[in-house]
Amino acid sequence: MSDAPSPPGALSFLPIAGIPEVRPGDDLATLFGEAIATPPNPALHDGDVLVVAQKIVSKAENRYVELDHIVPGDEAKALAQRCGKDARLVELVLRESSEVLRAAPGVLIVRHRLGFVVANAAIDQSNLPESNGERALLLPADPDASARALRAQLERRYGIRLAVLISDSFGRAWRLGVCGSCVGCAGLQALVDLRGRRDRSGRVLQVTQLAVADQICASATLVGGEAAEGQPVVVVRGVPRAYLAEGSGVRDLLRPREQDLFR
Amino acid sequence: MSDAPSPPGALSFLPIAGIPEVRPGDDLATLFGEAIATPPNPALHDGDVLVVAQKIVSKAENRYVELDHIVPGDEAKALAQRCGKDARLVELVLRESSEVLRAAPGVLIVRHRLGFVVANAAIDQSNLPESNGERALLLPADPDASARALRAQLERRYGIRLAVLISDSFGRAWRLGVCGSCVGCAGLQALVDLRGRRDRSGRVLQVTQLAVADQICASATLVGGEAAEGQPVVVVRGVPRAYLAEGSGVRDLLRPREQDLFR
Repeated sequence: MSDAPSPPGALSFLPIAGIPEVRPGDDLATLFGEAIATPPNPALHDGDVLVVAQKIVSKAENRYVELDHIVPGDEAKALAQRCGKDARLVELVLRESSEVLRAAPGVLIVRHRLGFVVANAAIDQSNLPESNGERALLLPADPDASARALRAQLERRYGIRLAVLISDSFGRAWRLGVCGSCVGCAGLQALVDLRGRRDRSGRVLQVTQLAVADQICASATLVGGEAAEGQPVVVVRGVPRAYLAEGSGVRDLLRPREQDLFR
Repeated sequence: MSDAPSPPGALSFLPIAGIPEVRPGDDLATLFGEAIATPPNPALHDGDVLVVAQKIVSKAENRYVELDHIVPGDEAKALAQRCGKDARLVELVLRESSEVLRAAPGVLIVRHRLGFVVANAAIDQSNLPESNGERALLLPADPDASARALRAQLERRYGIRLAVLISDSFGRAWRLGVCGSCVGCAGLQALVDLRGRRDRSGRVLQVTQLAVADQICASATLVGGEAAEGQPVVVVRGVPRAYLAEGSGVRDLLRPREQDLFR
């Protein structure tokens, strides 16, 4: 814990402690408000970006599925055998996806119908509350809409301008390990386009598009210590004002299918 | 600029202002030391992680190449035509790479001989100082070794324990926009392996490997405002102590070629 003031240009990731286990139907804005009112949690400032773990948004939206209620079809059964996975889970993955990109032992990478390329359609089975049978948790039905709704509620409540990102941990094609990635976005330009801008010598910049929402979500996942799933809500302070514009949500970050060079 | 103290578990990205244009032969530890001694730059604390932009490490190591000195071979000429790129640059890309993964108009993705899958072998042509002809800047010859050397110098100078990451902006297979990525690492476990750990309900965790070094570099790239290249040196404070272990460098993050499912 440091008492030194932040220098200009600093970016701070401040965890919000004390968010209770989220249950279906819970109002996240209310839960956050109660937590934020409790020291040492930081008060929200104008321009803050809230990064919210997908898991608690999905829980609030009751995106649970009981695996016992899922009857796998033939495609799911065949894929499950190829991947060494539960056929009911694979059936769920197929229902959530528009396309299977790779299936191999232990690996099932799909294009989620929301456009994300992700293992197992981002279906979650860890850190779920007890139930009688096995459960799975799907992504929010429309994470951009979830982010927009939460942002509107919080902005009204606090009378300040905020952005809300919903993050999940995704693997990468070319590197090991997961990284926080943005799955829902409101109030921030997810992708900042610098095309046409020039460097200090007047040369057109090579790096032309910044994945700002992913860059923010990546570190947010680290906040709160060594737990595998970090803190469910992190306030990010110091994101450049120019990025806090209305964007078109997370779809800006999705590589169009026809530009996918690795099929 | 906030004067509020950071709550427990916070992660702060503090830019180091006033790093001069780096020239070949410059000693980065000396340049950093001079900058850090100047307010409002933060003093270094035990456990801080320094994220250093690849570009200034390459400049200090004189990794410049004059394109006029490069004679493209037949393979480079053919590839250059396919990609619509300068044949001399493509020749350099080939010399830096072990394998071409994709070549298409405007796109040349290779496996760098260091193991990174990256466009144009991470060769840089923006924000380079004036020269008579066109220049390019290669990655450091051994970025892990560069990170280790810088870490050793700074730890000796300040008598504290530090980690040093060298970052670059890399594109991703499945998402648009670049994200800060780690290309050199010392004093930090680049990949934290949680395999076998269990969640709160005793279920084996699904997310098993965290790309900690990439998660840190991703947000560091955002620090310092809207410039396309951010601040060259960022101090990251609050990284969990457990991650500050001796690792094997950035190679821990590289997906082994035989596990590459997208070839």
